[in-house]
Amino acid sequence: MSLLVVGSVAFDAIETPFGKTDKIIGGAASYISLAASYFTKTSKLVAVVGEDFPADFIQTLNQKGVNTEGLQIKKGEKSFFWSGKYHTDMNSRDTLVTELNVLGDFDPIIPESYQDCEYLMLGNLTPAVQQTVINRLTKRPKLIVMDTMNFWMEIALDDLKQTLKMVDVLTINDEEARQLSGEYSLVKAAKVILAMGPKFLIIKKGENGALLFHNNEVFFAPALPLEEVFDPTGAGDTFAGGFIGYLAKTDDISFDNMKNALIYGSAMASFCVEKFGTERIMSLQHDELENRITQFKNLVKFNLASL
Amino acid sequence: MSLLVVGSVAFDAIETPFGKTDKIIGGAASYISLAASYFTKTSKLVAVVGEDFPADFIQTLNQKGVNTEGLQIKKGEKSFFWSGKYHTDMNSRDTLVTELNVLGDFDPIIPESYQDCEYLMLGNLTPAVQQTVINRLTKRPKLIVMDTMNFWMEIALDDLKQTLKMVDVLTINDEEARQLSGEYSLVKAAKVILAMGPKFLIIKKGENGALLFHNNEVFFAPALPLEEVFDPTGAGDTFAGGFIGYLAKTDDISFDNMKNALIYGSAMASFCVEKFGTERIMSLQHDELENRITQFKNLVKFNLASL
Repeated sequence: MSLLVVGSVAFDAIETPFGKTDKIIGGAASYISLAASYFTKTSKLVAVVGEDFPADFIQTLNQKGVNTEGLQIKKGEKSFFWSGKYHTDMNSRDTLVTELNVLGDFDPIIPESYQDCEYLMLGNLTPAVQQTVINRLTKRPKLIVMDTMNFWMEIALDDLKQTLKMVDVLTINDEEARQLSGEYSLVKAAKVILAMGPKFLIIKKGENGALLFHNNEVFFAPALPLEEVFDPTGAGDTFAGGFIGYLAKTDDISFDNMKNALIYGSAMASFCVEKFGTERIMSLQHDELENRITQFKNLVKFNLASL
Repeated sequence: MSLLVVGSVAFDAIETPFGKTDKIIGGAASYISLAASYFTKTSKLVAVVGEDFPADFIQTLNQKGVNTEGLQIKKGEKSFFWSGKYHTDMNSRDTLVTELNVLGDFDPIIPESYQDCEYLMLGNLTPAVQQTVINRLTKRPKLIVMDTMNFWMEIALDDLKQTLKMVDVLTINDEEARQLSGEYSLVKAAKVILAMGPKFLIIKKGENGALLFHNNEVFFAPALPLEEVFDPTGAGDTFAGGFIGYLAKTDDISFDNMKNALIYGSAMASFCVEKFGTERIMSLQHDELENRITQFKNLVKFNLASL
């Protein structure tokens, strides 16, 4: 089924304990589109970049089956730029530079040819822009997944809450879940957030896996214990891209199939962190992905009879 | 198979965001023995308490099948006492009081009737005392599991390293694994620690589950997402008690059976934190435990076919 991805396509400059990069390709929608392209070849991108954005990355997306008709290229303007430095533990980072540039007044125009999309992934953006995307679709997609972050909880909470009422799945990390709900326990936090609108909630815990909540049920997808985390940038977006890509491919939005999608999302994210930026997920081979899925299965497999 | 448990039996006074206690029963060996008693009725305790220790707790242990012949009661002396206060996140705590009392010169005397033990659980104690226990056994047990903590890495590292060479399984938490190995990545840390002696390493991550490392294999046991963590005191010891209790009952020390033991240990620990001290695991019913095991199975169960 066709997938619409909306989010930032941008430049990042990253410093980790293992090295640093100049401006490289970043942005939520870049990671999401690349990750989803391993599952579906009918995805469509809505985003905005400046004149400075490299044409060869857009070509790469096209080669991977990503339709970029909805990627606006603003003449004489610059792409969104973020620069950050990770601490030794890789779980926290300082933002060094944020230049909104073209993202400051992003108007998400949906090409007519995109109107048939069945799956919608709203990457992290101003909640009002996310809402505009939903309102501009003539037919509500079968599944709307939305990512957001703590920043919007601080400066645009009302917009965020309105948007939450319109989506099916919300993905946030554990700290954001606590902030949004006001509850420390993630089980309690999930109850509060599910009452805000989404029918499914994914709480990402980085190297500690991810939880999927739905009604009174919960599923846990572990993260693969890795020898080295080289660069965590984009891991959450890659996870989301794998998750919705798998759902769009299998076209089954049951809770049971979402569990599978969570495992594929986790597997994709485990590759993302192995190299800087999008490098690793750009070059991923199908058999590498399947091997890693086997590792995930073995990681939590036990055969326990009753005592 | 018979199980020998060595460790502290003591008093704790605990303060959490949910309330505080006066002196209640605590100590690693108390939690371990109680947890193991759900699996094996032939366990034997070596520990030391003062004259102030309540006889009714010793009776409770006996009723649960714990042989206390090796529990020394020192006339005119006081039991070990620890007092601590948990922070709001429950993952960190301040120690308010530590009174070693009888534990200061603990000489672990092994009664002759204990010499047939096949499984040995060394609760957290001075590494030299743990070593003495092993040396005083005429026949090496089939499996020796050892718990320790960061404190001994700081003041008795050489003793600790010597003791590590004599045991089969080490249980420590993630921060301790990092400290002992000098590696931040837990995968790398495990390699370093397994090279120090133990054939199996369990890294406990609290609410984020536990990892079992053996050769180049790894297994992950999730923690059950809980609505409320009331008091984390003793959770690690309860985990260890469930783990070795299950192994002693099933008498199978294969890697595959250790996975099962890890799940049972996690299930026991998930009860422990629901009330203050030993209260919850003291009153646990068999069907409650089996129901929770089913929850653990469902938490990580997915049915994923190849794409």
